Amino acid sequence: MSNYRFQTADHIIAGRHSVANIGEHLALVGLPIQKALIVTQPALVQTGAVASLEAALKDRGIAVDQTTNVEPEPTLENIEQVFADTVGAQDYDVLIGLGGGSILDTTKLLSVLKTNNKGLEAMLGTDLVEHAGVPTILIPTTSGTGAEVTPNAIVTLPEKELKIGVVSRHLLPSLVILDPVLTTGLPKPITAATGMDAFTHALESYISTKANPISDMFALEAIRLISANIVQAYQQGDDLDAREKMLVGAMYGGMALTAAGTAAVHAMAYPLGGKYKIAHGVANSMLLPHVTQFNLDAIQERLASVAGPMGIDVAGLSDGDAAQAVVDKIKELTKTLEIPQDLAEYGVDKDSIEEMAVAALDVKRLMDNNPKTVTKNDAIAIYSKLLV
Amino acid sequence: MSNYRFQTADHIIAGRHSVANIGEHLALVGLPIQKALIVTQPALVQTGAVASLEAALKDRGIAVDQTTNVEPEPTLENIEQVFADTVGAQDYDVLIGLGGGSILDTTKLLSVLKTNNKGLEAMLGTDLVEHAGVPTILIPTTSGTGAEVTPNAIVTLPEKELKIGVVSRHLLPSLVILDPVLTTGLPKPITAATGMDAFTHALESYISTKANPISDMFALEAIRLISANIVQAYQQGDDLDAREKMLVGAMYGGMALTAAGTAAVHAMAYPLGGKYKIAHGVANSMLLPHVTQFNLDAIQERLASVAGPMGIDVAGLSDGDAAQAVVDKIKELTKTLEIPQDLAEYGVDKDSIEEMAVAALDVKRLMDNNPKTVTKNDAIAIYSKLLV
Ligand SMILES: NC(=O)c1ccc[n+]([C@@H]2O[C@H](COP(=O)([O-])OP(=O)(O)OC[C@H]3O[C@@H](n4cnc5c(N)ncnc54)[C@H](O)[C@@H]3O)[C@@H](O)[C@H]2O)c1
Ligand SMILES: NC(=O)c1ccc[n+]([C@@H]2O[C@H](COP(=O)([O-])OP(=O)(O)OC[C@H]3O[C@@H](n4cnc5c(N)ncnc54)[C@H](O)[C@@H]3O)[C@@H](O)[C@H]2O)c1
Ligand SMILES: [Fe+2]
Ligand SMILES: [Fe+2]
Repeated sequence: MSNYRFQTADHIIAGRHSVANIGEHLALVGLPIQKALIVTQPALVQTGAVASLEAALKDRGIAVDQTTNVEPEPTLENIEQVFADTVGAQDYDVLIGLGGGSILDTTKLLSVLKTNNKGLEAMLGTDLVEHAGVPTILIPTTSGTGAEVTPNAIVTLPEKELKIGVVSRHLLPSLVILDPVLTTGLPKPITAATGMDAFTHALESYISTKANPISDMFALEAIRLISANIVQAYQQGDDLDAREKMLVGAMYGGMALTAAGTAAVHAMAYPLGGKYKIAHGVANSMLLPHVTQFNLDAIQERLASVAGPMGIDVAGLSDGDAAQAVVDKIKELTKTLEIPQDLAEYGVDKDSIEEMAVAALDVKRLMDNNPKTVTKNDAIAIYSKLLV
Repeated sequence: MSNYRFQTADHIIAGRHSVANIGEHLALVGLPIQKALIVTQPALVQTGAVASLEAALKDRGIAVDQTTNVEPEPTLENIEQVFADTVGAQDYDVLIGLGGGSILDTTKLLSVLKTNNKGLEAMLGTDLVEHAGVPTILIPTTSGTGAEVTPNAIVTLPEKELKIGVVSRHLLPSLVILDPVLTTGLPKPITAATGMDAFTHALESYISTKANPISDMFALEAIRLISANIVQAYQQGDDLDAREKMLVGAMYGGMALTAAGTAAVHAMAYPLGGKYKIAHGVANSMLLPHVTQFNLDAIQERLASVAGPMGIDVAGLSDGDAAQAVVDKIKELTKTLEIPQDLAEYGVDKDSIEEMAVAALDVKRLMDNNPKTVTKNDAIAIYSKLLV
């Protein structure tokens, strides 16, 4: 095996009501804070999450500003506008991202935009951020992207109809807080789609050509936690135990993908997000069963070894049959979680598919991780399964 | 469950010959290095490890100094002397620790001694280091302490006959490199003792009163990796696959103990190291079976759940019997690995035991993590089993 690499956030606090204890945690991390900016969205104001975070900070004598102007899956323009309105004009000791992947990614970018003398466009790509940013605290409120522990941030470029990543170790936060109480109000469809996104991170890392012993551990544990808890979190949103395990599982998914990368599912989801504005989690959840079925013959043994962590009894089955049982279980999950099945609902038609296939193949960074080569015709066939 | 906390090194490179590629890794971490100090010991000069590290650095035009004056399980005086002779007098861009826990801990301390205006004595304890140190790279050459990923460093105080820890997030390194090639020359007795020390970190974290979902994952994976590979690494030292899995397992042990803490085994090992100079790994390996037998009735279920990861078939057994099978397997490992069994060989006699028991009970930070209260008489009874 060749060398492999692992990066993560170096300080994580977890547990119920851990946000209420943020004051103590700040002392542990040694962040001397007088003025903080909370980066969030209206939904988190409504759930009361922002108010409780703000109260905990003010309790410690910390002055707090907030912005709720970040769009879901934000564009480059939106991020630069939020920057100009907040961090660009004022000095904060820390930026606190409270929200899903869209918020966490934006918070990471605001941080480095402040300290690097260049615009966001010049940062798109790998290792183009030179200086450490303003310290950040990331508090995920979906159990999805794992963005709280990855060195990546995703930006939407609508005029190019694509999404593109900034990758830099300077995007890692000073502190991560996983508080399941914040996620009990997550609506059912978002619970389902973001949870399956997290599952996809784990599964794609596990079958990635870059999989390694470190990524495997996180991937399998994420698969185990998510498989055992996603239906309960979906059906019984206030089950704190299930919500906590989903948060931890999603974080491990982020750790796995940092070490091994995602693959064809994510590559094929990019055009769905970039052009048709299909939410990241929804796009991945739709594609996952079909891409995994396509990959099956190249990864029978690996896929079979996922059956145990998914809680599927495959005693006596061949690897091929066990692998098929895994795919069938994923399909069943998709149904139970009521993941949309028809791309036509989002405006995709037969004629758009070829262009999407070309765009997906162009995401080489991810396609290279896929264990089986995806041709243009393969991609067209897979997308076609989602046009019923 | 209450809140729990996880800290680790945020950048890890692993794999065979990863040290030879250190130049590239430095670029990834963004360390602009012109002058490095290698902190190491004569044994690593003999194995050729120092020469290959030096060559890889010089290849990149980096000037390299080295010191081999760190003693095994170094005293406060030794560390301050090495500091005065090296880092105190000169400026380095990075300090590279190449060795076992003794070297890694010393490197961490040299780093913060340089940037904090106080002596080592004033740092003993928790969170008494104020400023970040000189960047460090930690390269373990035993598969034992996991010190490369912990925020701890242990100092021997011979006049007080004890060992004491410095705990600070500023002790975490900028980069960890796990290269199994470096460990193939590790002598058999050190392979055995340091490997069982790593196993002890995992097992004690798993049964710790502070165990949590994050520490559990690392603990169980460490137990799995070490159980499956320690005998092979011991008997066939040049088996790179076994050596690699031991290195990764030991690192996970360090991650587990950072999140959950060690317990009575480590507390009772302290007097053996502080007063009788018994190597850390040896002291823990001797104590582990007896302390675990003592703990058994308080942790039957937890201990039983370790059987699977240890590869013990306990189908049909009660939790109590499965837990006993785990203890028996640990005893068997101790024999296979020829761990010393008699404290008398190290100068301990019946009359010294009471004093040792008192000293062990005094290590409250660790004793508090033990799932069963250890009284003075309990500690005396356990030590007595090692006087045959
Ligand atoms: N950085 C990475 O490593 C990484 C990895 C994968 C995906 N991503 C990116 O993350 C983004 C997607 O993030 P996401 O899937 O978490 O969705 P999201 O952040 O876009 O959130 C989806 C919606 O849910 C709302 N919401 C979030 N938490 C809520 C809560 N607790 N209660 C009620 N409503 C809540 C949000 O306001 C938003 O409207 C995409 O841009 C994607 O490309 C990043
Ligand atoms: N910081 C932490 O989190 C932590 C945790 C547990 C223990 N410790 C401390 O670590 C120290 C023990 O470390 P250790 O058990 O790794 O032993 P060690 O570092 O003392 O090494 C033992 C001996 O092995 C030699 N050696 C090391 N690697 C070798 C190799 N590859 N080939 C040949 N010889 C080699 C060393 O030179 C030394 O003589 C103790 O001081 C202990 O208290 C620290
Ligand atoms: Fe994703
Ligand atoms: Fe130890």
